[in-house]
Amino acid sequence: MGLSEISLDWLVGFIEGEGNFHIILSYSHKAGKKLHICYPILQFRIFLREDDLDVLKKIEQFIGCGKIYKKNYDYARRKGVGARDQYCFVISDVKGLTHLKDILQNSNFHTKKNKDKDIFFDILEMIKQKNHLTKEGNEKIIQLANKMNSQNRALFRKKPV
Amino acid sequence: MGLSEISLDWLVGFIEGEGNFHIILSYSHKAGKKLHICYPILQFRIFLREDDLDVLKKIEQFIGCGKIYKKNYDYARRKGVGARDQYCFVISDVKGLTHLKDILQNSNFHTKKNKDKDIFFDILEMIKQKNHLTKEGNEKIIQLANKMNSQNRALFRKKPV
Repeated sequence: MGLSEISLDWLVGFIEGEGNFHIILSYSHKAGKKLHICYPILQFRIFLREDDLDVLKKIEQFIGCGKIYKKNYDYARRKGVGARDQYCFVISDVKGLTHLKDILQNSNFHTKKNKDKDIFFDILEMIKQKNHLTKEGNEKIIQLANKMNSQNRALFRKKPV
Repeated sequence: MGLSEISLDWLVGFIEGEGNFHIILSYSHKAGKKLHICYPILQFRIFLREDDLDVLKKIEQFIGCGKIYKKNYDYARRKGVGARDQYCFVISDVKGLTHLKDILQNSNFHTKKNKDKDIFFDILEMIKQKNHLTKEGNEKIIQLANKMNSQNRALFRKKPV
């Protein structure tokens, strides 16, 4: 294990492999109104196995925000699946994500994760402008989210079933 | 997609996520002799989906050796599995792996892949010294390979079944 700190280039390379720009579209239906509005929830996440917790701590320290959660697989193990516990580094608040955007914006991404990152931060800006509360903005966000590589596309329906 | 070249730090971060220090222990049994010898085959590999072929080309160019192979999933798709084709960047010759070692040896690895890398290159040095042809060297290599995180440990039996 290297004792030294991480660098921005290392972090970008690591994010291209392990980082996850995750968007959840949460639908709600206002009583008495026909308009379905989706509430986009943005999460930047890195999952690692428990024996790499120190790496997540270094990343948290480098970025300067975010939280680390334990993902417990006790249940899976009791069912006989040999899963190991994981830790997840998450940034999900607008202030933290804006800070992450500032850190990454001048870095060169090389993989298709670049597109996910750009869409993710475009949607972040729309949320900051409160565009997600308008019908047009809402539809635009769904369109953008559907263009991401790393999403489960089946989740991005225009209207809830 | 970034048009710029990759950096060493980016490559190290990316290897920590996507790189694979792979050891195959191939067993043979000389006729008339009781000694089982394993022949270690070393492969450094990075698998990416076909739409990230350009990234593998950049990595190949940066490192200056290795080959890129296509991994075709036609068969899986015919069976109804929605797998996408992959490309794999591989370095498997002693000269190329020695070159990779030189490139990576002063870089800081932060994840548990650091241990895999060190063991991988230790075994490379043993092969270069022809230690793998002695009984002691052979046993040492099996011991080392068993300590790697990323290997399928069941493969590393001391003797073939």
